[in-house]
Amino acid sequence: MRNLIKEALSDFFFEYETPRQVLVRNPKVGIACRILQLGVLAYIIGWVFIYEKGYQIKDTAISSVFTKMKGIAYTDINGAERLWDVADYVFPDQGVSSFVVMTNFIMTVGQSQDKCPELPDGTNNCTTDADCKKGQYKRTGNGRMTGKCINQTTCEILSWCPVQDDRVIPNPPLLAAAENFTLFIKNSISFPDFGVVRSNLVEKVDSNYLKTCLFDPVKHPLCPIFRLGDIVSLSGFRFSEIAQVGGSIGILIEWECNLDLRIAKCIPKYRFEGLYGNSSQASVGYNFRTAKYYTEDRIQKRTLMKVFGLYIEIIVHGQARKFDIIPTLTAIGSGVGIFGVATVVCDVVLLYFLPKKDFYKTLKFKSTPVEDEEPESVTMDQAKEATQEK
Amino acid sequence: MRNLIKEALSDFFFEYETPRQVLVRNPKVGIACRILQLGVLAYIIGWVFIYEKGYQIKDTAISSVFTKMKGIAYTDINGAERLWDVADYVFPDQGVSSFVVMTNFIMTVGQSQDKCPELPDGTNNCTTDADCKKGQYKRTGNGRMTGKCINQTTCEILSWCPVQDDRVIPNPPLLAAAENFTLFIKNSISFPDFGVVRSNLVEKVDSNYLKTCLFDPVKHPLCPIFRLGDIVSLSGFRFSEIAQVGGSIGILIEWECNLDLRIAKCIPKYRFEGLYGNSSQASVGYNFRTAKYYTEDRIQKRTLMKVFGLYIEIIVHGQARKFDIIPTLTAIGSGVGIFGVATVVCDVVLLYFLPKKDFYKTLKFKSTPVEDEEPESVTMDQAKEATQEK
Amino acid sequence: MRNLIKEALSDFFFEYETPRQVLVRNPKVGIACRILQLGVLAYIIGWVFIYEKGYQIKDTAISSVFTKMKGIAYTDINGAERLWDVADYVFPDQGVSSFVVMTNFIMTVGQSQDKCPELPDGTNNCTTDADCKKGQYKRTGNGRMTGKCINQTTCEILSWCPVQDDRVIPNPPLLAAAENFTLFIKNSISFPDFGVVRSNLVEKVDSNYLKTCLFDPVKHPLCPIFRLGDIVSLSGFRFSEIAQVGGSIGILIEWECNLDLRIAKCIPKYRFEGLYGNSSQASVGYNFRTAKYYTEDRIQKRTLMKVFGLYIEIIVHGQARKFDIIPTLTAIGSGVGIFGVATVVCDVVLLYFLPKKDFYKTLKFKSTPVEDEEPESVTMDQAKEATQEK
Repeated sequence: MRNLIKEALSDFFFEYETPRQVLVRNPKVGIACRILQLGVLAYIIGWVFIYEKGYQIKDTAISSVFTKMKGIAYTDINGAERLWDVADYVFPDQGVSSFVVMTNFIMTVGQSQDKCPELPDGTNNCTTDADCKKGQYKRTGNGRMTGKCINQTTCEILSWCPVQDDRVIPNPPLLAAAENFTLFIKNSISFPDFGVVRSNLVEKVDSNYLKTCLFDPVKHPLCPIFRLGDIVSLSGFRFSEIAQVGGSIGILIEWECNLDLRIAKCIPKYRFEGLYGNSSQASVGYNFRTAKYYTEDRIQKRTLMKVFGLYIEIIVHGQARKFDIIPTLTAIGSGVGIFGVATVVCDVVLLYFLPKKDFYKTLKFKSTPVEDEEPESVTMDQAKEATQEK
Repeated sequence: MRNLIKEALSDFFFEYETPRQVLVRNPKVGIACRILQLGVLAYIIGWVFIYEKGYQIKDTAISSVFTKMKGIAYTDINGAERLWDVADYVFPDQGVSSFVVMTNFIMTVGQSQDKCPELPDGTNNCTTDADCKKGQYKRTGNGRMTGKCINQTTCEILSWCPVQDDRVIPNPPLLAAAENFTLFIKNSISFPDFGVVRSNLVEKVDSNYLKTCLFDPVKHPLCPIFRLGDIVSLSGFRFSEIAQVGGSIGILIEWECNLDLRIAKCIPKYRFEGLYGNSSQASVGYNFRTAKYYTEDRIQKRTLMKVFGLYIEIIVHGQARKFDIIPTLTAIGSGVGIFGVATVVCDVVLLYFLPKKDFYKTLKFKSTPVEDEEPESVTMDQAKEATQEK
Repeated sequence: MRNLIKEALSDFFFEYETPRQVLVRNPKVGIACRILQLGVLAYIIGWVFIYEKGYQIKDTAISSVFTKMKGIAYTDINGAERLWDVADYVFPDQGVSSFVVMTNFIMTVGQSQDKCPELPDGTNNCTTDADCKKGQYKRTGNGRMTGKCINQTTCEILSWCPVQDDRVIPNPPLLAAAENFTLFIKNSISFPDFGVVRSNLVEKVDSNYLKTCLFDPVKHPLCPIFRLGDIVSLSGFRFSEIAQVGGSIGILIEWECNLDLRIAKCIPKYRFEGLYGNSSQASVGYNFRTAKYYTEDRIQKRTLMKVFGLYIEIIVHGQARKFDIIPTLTAIGSGVGIFGVATVVCDVVLLYFLPKKDFYKTLKFKSTPVEDEEPESVTMDQAKEATQEK
């Protein structure tokens, strides 16, 4: 028994199989096949490995962003001088990745809960009290109708009074100075699978550089300080226009890192896009209402602002690639597989389309007789032939 | 020398190898193998290609979201009529992707820094001053104890006074009208690898449609305007319940785009989920405290609100697939590999389990004698045989 | 005709090809090859399958987060006692995934729009009015110069007056008590491809446990309630330092789920990282300005706060893996491909480096004569040989 196993093992280890092949000496087929095979080889090496970097694995970045605006704006609304600083024009304050920079506004000071006529903006007209059912709301209205129709123009409503009149949007925008505000972006990403952490304050971007630099797609592509006017123009808007009615802009920070190279080569690329457009072209227009509440003479009041501005959203898209044995061998392996396909194709040509195909068949294939016809004799023949071959 | 190279080259290019094969004429094995091979073929074509679309590469979307609420609510709290608009009940104002719609609240007007008795909610009882150590905090308390125990009920504390009494949550919810508020969602995604940008305002959703439409899973699955009541019911909550104590709802926008088809077929799918539940069932209850600060008679005061509401989080999950040569050939290649496995399996059957296995062995394998026994003679034999074969 | 097809079919189904092989009985080559092949086998099974789990597909999680702070702080700023609760020190209120906990601040009460001298912080000095051009802004300034230079120190500006003096940051931090605040995190993730939903309130974390537990990396790694002081120290900062000037901390929630195992094993891992540092070490320092607006004696005023604090960002990174037939078979397939490579290598050795290579060539290859030399005779010879083999 032991011997048997031993034998089997030695057999297994001392010999190996290699397929017997026919060397077809046919220039046409030969050249065709070689070219085919070389093609496959070229594809595997050139395309999969060099171009598509098939030997690397990918990882997507986890990212976190912090922003800070700088700048002052001065307004003179019929004689009332006023200065606006960051705390006034940025919503929200904390420097999150998506925020609004106010560039224009409609302010209604000192609203309080009261009864007042609806805004005569054409959609809320009435002629008799019958048009203003008590307790009802108009879809286009700002409050709850009391049932009165005031001088046959609009219904009286319970609401924050006076109702804000937003029919006319100031033009030029009140905070046109926003064009010169600057935005500072801090972005740190990490690739958990590779244990790599990077910040957009890369090697060259040190504190001295930050003091003076201003982003420029060509001259200063790594400076994380952006002029609002530049952001707008780079994203394809006209500032004067977007500053009046507002708009949404995405700042894309793209990281494409090949970690097989020096980490210092892993740097961000900044892109600017208008958002929320149908397919290609982006739509202008962004606004929201916010209220500041206070109490005056024991009455709660609020200052309602309709804010038009830049809704800036910072979107980070980070991807790193690194050599890994698995994809490498998978690529090689399936490459070899495709090699097999090449051979198959050649064989088809050889065995079905060449004039001397039958001859090649006899060479390539050795067929056993069909089983069912008197097996004995068969084995005889075969046995003979077998010996012959030894 | 040159000649040698030439020869080698011509040899290489004018001939090609193709494996010699045995044609086993055995119905059993034959059928078995063919079926096996056809199975592999079917798998590769049917499953990998047609079903799993193995010929495509994926890309995940970068997304940005903007939201806008519409609607008015009226409250009459013991005679004090009041109207609530967007600026009052949405937190935060700017229309970000996760926000809160207030549906119920407990308001404490005019708190100021002062000394007052702790809330008698059972957790802060005291009988003597000894129970209220000066300068200490009770884990369940709202302020810093002064050391006094007031009429043997609760400790006196330094805090925003009067302390907010949130023992009773208004029922029915004060802003039950929120059920009819509408939410408008703008979502734009981009697939950086494919350079494709899409908005949820797809072809059919034009400005006219937006004026009138309201989301309905069956009739209007693409309308980006949602009734709050619908959102709640679609996510499996009862509005009356969630409106009172609050709750968290996720609006999933799912993009599954096959970019080999018309881009117009790349449309979003909206789903609604209750959040933060253990495993399956979602838990009700969401609230936070927010304060509005003002100054009255030179004293800073605040109106503290405990806000109950819908915490809505809009989560975008976009994925696009597109034909690519690499995965295609990788699939083919490894498919061919599996083909090899099929053959191997057949061989095993043939060579180890068939009655006439030895006979097949002699056909499939031609063995060289073991090296070490008198090599000369060997080569002789072989040489003879070799000539024989030529 | 029918017969022909029948025949072809029966041929196709009743026979199958298997390559003819040479059994090379050469210990050296044999062992070398076997080891090579075993190596490949070991790699495929051991590495691809067991270690890298090559038989699974991945899916990335969609996540949503909700946070809640708890704690009270007491300040005594030259006699003015004051108590701070959540509504006072958390920005924003609603419990989103990135927020700020105020630990220190500089408060300027009762600013109003007015004219006042610029801050004498060395950057805004002037000697004559000529240094303060009317209508100009200094990059380092806080307002719009009126043209006056006040007692030859700083320019007069139009601004929110008095200008906030942030030259000295309070030390020790005013809200040092923040160290004992607690943060509660709710996180629910879902894997759309697998239809799995999980919450960080996993099986063991029930309401009773939540009442008492406090996160500890060793003892309570699943408790979602964190002491602020712990978060800071675990992320490598000193609290006293970061509390004074502020800083940014990322709380990573990592989900690595193998869905082939019990779902209960799919649990989160919490990690803490300082953010925004160059490469490795994180930089301290975070602050922003926020204003509370109110009206006093018909004049709009504001309380400007420069807030120093912990900017906490909760980042979720979820990944699930599950068995899938495609990657499994792809791995096997390309594995077989690599097997082919092994054989090729052996053949190269056999046919080019062994002393008896020519002999092995004659065994492995059977070559057809080159076509163009008198084809007839060729076929003759071949025919003979062919018969010989039958």
